[in-house]
Amino acid sequence: MTEEEEMVVTPWEVSGKIDYEKLIQQFGTQPITDELLERLKKHTGKLHLQLQRKLFFSHRDLDWILDRYEAGQKFVLYTGRGPSGPVHIGHLVPWIFTKHLQDAFDAKLIFQMTDDEKFLVHPELTLEKSVGFTYDNALDVIAVGFDPEKTVILSDVKHISAQYEIAIQVAKRVTFSTVKAVFGFEDSSNIGIIFFPAMQAVPCFLESALTGKNVPCLIPAAIDQDPYWRVTRDIAPKLGYYKPAQIHCRFLPGLGKGGKMSASLPETSIFTTDTPEDVERKIWNAFTGGKPTEREQKKLGGDPAICTIFYYFYYLFEESNDRMEELERECRSGENICGDCKKILADRVNLFLKEHQRKREKARNIVEKFFIK
Amino acid sequence: MTEEEEMVVTPWEVSGKIDYEKLIQQFGTQPITDELLERLKKHTGKLHLQLQRKLFFSHRDLDWILDRYEAGQKFVLYTGRGPSGPVHIGHLVPWIFTKHLQDAFDAKLIFQMTDDEKFLVHPELTLEKSVGFTYDNALDVIAVGFDPEKTVILSDVKHISAQYEIAIQVAKRVTFSTVKAVFGFEDSSNIGIIFFPAMQAVPCFLESALTGKNVPCLIPAAIDQDPYWRVTRDIAPKLGYYKPAQIHCRFLPGLGKGGKMSASLPETSIFTTDTPEDVERKIWNAFTGGKPTEREQKKLGGDPAICTIFYYFYYLFEESNDRMEELERECRSGENICGDCKKILADRVNLFLKEHQRKREKARNIVEKFFIK
Repeated sequence: MTEEEEMVVTPWEVSGKIDYEKLIQQFGTQPITDELLERLKKHTGKLHLQLQRKLFFSHRDLDWILDRYEAGQKFVLYTGRGPSGPVHIGHLVPWIFTKHLQDAFDAKLIFQMTDDEKFLVHPELTLEKSVGFTYDNALDVIAVGFDPEKTVILSDVKHISAQYEIAIQVAKRVTFSTVKAVFGFEDSSNIGIIFFPAMQAVPCFLESALTGKNVPCLIPAAIDQDPYWRVTRDIAPKLGYYKPAQIHCRFLPGLGKGGKMSASLPETSIFTTDTPEDVERKIWNAFTGGKPTEREQKKLGGDPAICTIFYYFYYLFEESNDRMEELERECRSGENICGDCKKILADRVNLFLKEHQRKREKARNIVEKFFIK
Repeated sequence: MTEEEEMVVTPWEVSGKIDYEKLIQQFGTQPITDELLERLKKHTGKLHLQLQRKLFFSHRDLDWILDRYEAGQKFVLYTGRGPSGPVHIGHLVPWIFTKHLQDAFDAKLIFQMTDDEKFLVHPELTLEKSVGFTYDNALDVIAVGFDPEKTVILSDVKHISAQYEIAIQVAKRVTFSTVKAVFGFEDSSNIGIIFFPAMQAVPCFLESALTGKNVPCLIPAAIDQDPYWRVTRDIAPKLGYYKPAQIHCRFLPGLGKGGKMSASLPETSIFTTDTPEDVERKIWNAFTGGKPTEREQKKLGGDPAICTIFYYFYYLFEESNDRMEELERECRSGENICGDCKKILADRVNLFLKEHQRKREKARNIVEKFFIK
């Protein structure tokens, strides 16, 4: 492990080689067991690829959510996005899964755009830009196919009036000590970002506050966001609400070496608005498990375990288990070289993006319908 | 001074015997000089009683506000109220003066109800109660006679959408270190109250943000609120706005011994909704400079310098300087005993309250007109 960077996973930073077993231990969450998968399957039919492949791998109280559901009590889904730039494919992963849950459980979705957070965290980001990304990114959310009748998108900045009353009820019960310990805030942190954990808690309780009933909430999100809702879970009973349940996914790696896909490294991220040429170039330059020369690779084979191209097939672009096994064998044996895989992946990504971009343009006509009234 | 309590003046607590000279030094503000009073008089005509009697005694940049005004640039007024209970006469003092400034300078007034702050600070106060006091207290504000065409009342909770964008722009530039030093926040403080100083800054910049022009702002308020705007003044230039100017008043003492009038000591406060009997009882039990027995007082005289009744005449209920001198002489000589003064004051307070209560009831019909749209 000497040449690996140290693993860092916080809501602000994800870097190094991620050890997911260790994350479950560190964060104190539960692994998604085969038994739980069987239970989910009863409700969803075929198991979603992201569950089959354990992209979603950890949870809090998912079993309890199913208890409630089986007892006839519906839950709301909550996920979100910090709009500090354009959306890349990594962002779509939990959204695609969330849409699957919306369809399978006929659930309302609350989607929070934390444009206040991004403005408060990034020194150079203006409020106008941050809110601009909210509107831009909402097109990607809608393009995923959420039901307009059952989905609301909230901008923290533009829809604060729907959120502030709940936020200050949360904030009253969370001390600086707590957010210092959980998020590593310091005396030099600004007072906006110190308040922000209260904002990220709001959608957990919004449906309950609106309906006057206690409505369970399930949050599909990348595991780095877990600390927010750990704090939320602690104070939920004090407000008379259920603790939000969570289902956690891995990070889709960037096309570079290590870490999650990040908009701050644009050449290692495939944005939803990239042209086919962008996609080809980025994939062509991706980090793989290949050998330095074609001759060596044909002789010794590649290592799919560290290959970003392989990850993309596995988590998003190759549904067939048989074909995945074949791809792995062809790589290890040297039968396929990296260029072969890159070409197949680029075609699939471009096929996917062509459709996404079409839906994204159509979303412009209905985006206002999705924002909370 | 051995029997005096220590002077404590913060936005949360005012107690002990207040030394106003020392406050000017401690807070680093400017005294209102005779020269400045002369300058004000040119615009306001007769000098307002609260300036004559130096109830308003300190300022920041009041001279600069007059420079701007004389150069043809109008300013907005900003004051407010933390609605944690009913309004007492002490609260009306700066409002009455603010109305005078509104009339004299034809100025728009922004009146902020910090119902979020009160909810966040008082463990037992619910959000419903705090917002309820906003609506109740607004009746008292309106009864003071502000121009409905030039006055907006903001509830932080109910009108957050008009304020949040400015608040987070302020918050981004204020660290926990700063609010710790200025307000004495600690690690055990809740994250809502840590954010709150950003909310109290908002009305300083609201008119500028709404009009896209840089509009000077003058804040008449009790001096204990100065720390909020000291922080605001520090960051104003970073946002491209003028620093808010201030004019500070003393605290109207309660009817007990020492400190300001406080709703938490109801028998020492005259509430705007008190009955004539309440007023008589409270004034009858007030702390005065009288002697233990009538015989002693007739012989030795009383001490108006420590008498709360005398304060009330001086700051609110006796406009004539000649009559004030007479009252002082009659007290010191033993010519009048406390009961005489109490009777006169109770009559005047009840006369004032009768009229205030009439206007307060009428305000119910127009209160919605005052709230920001």
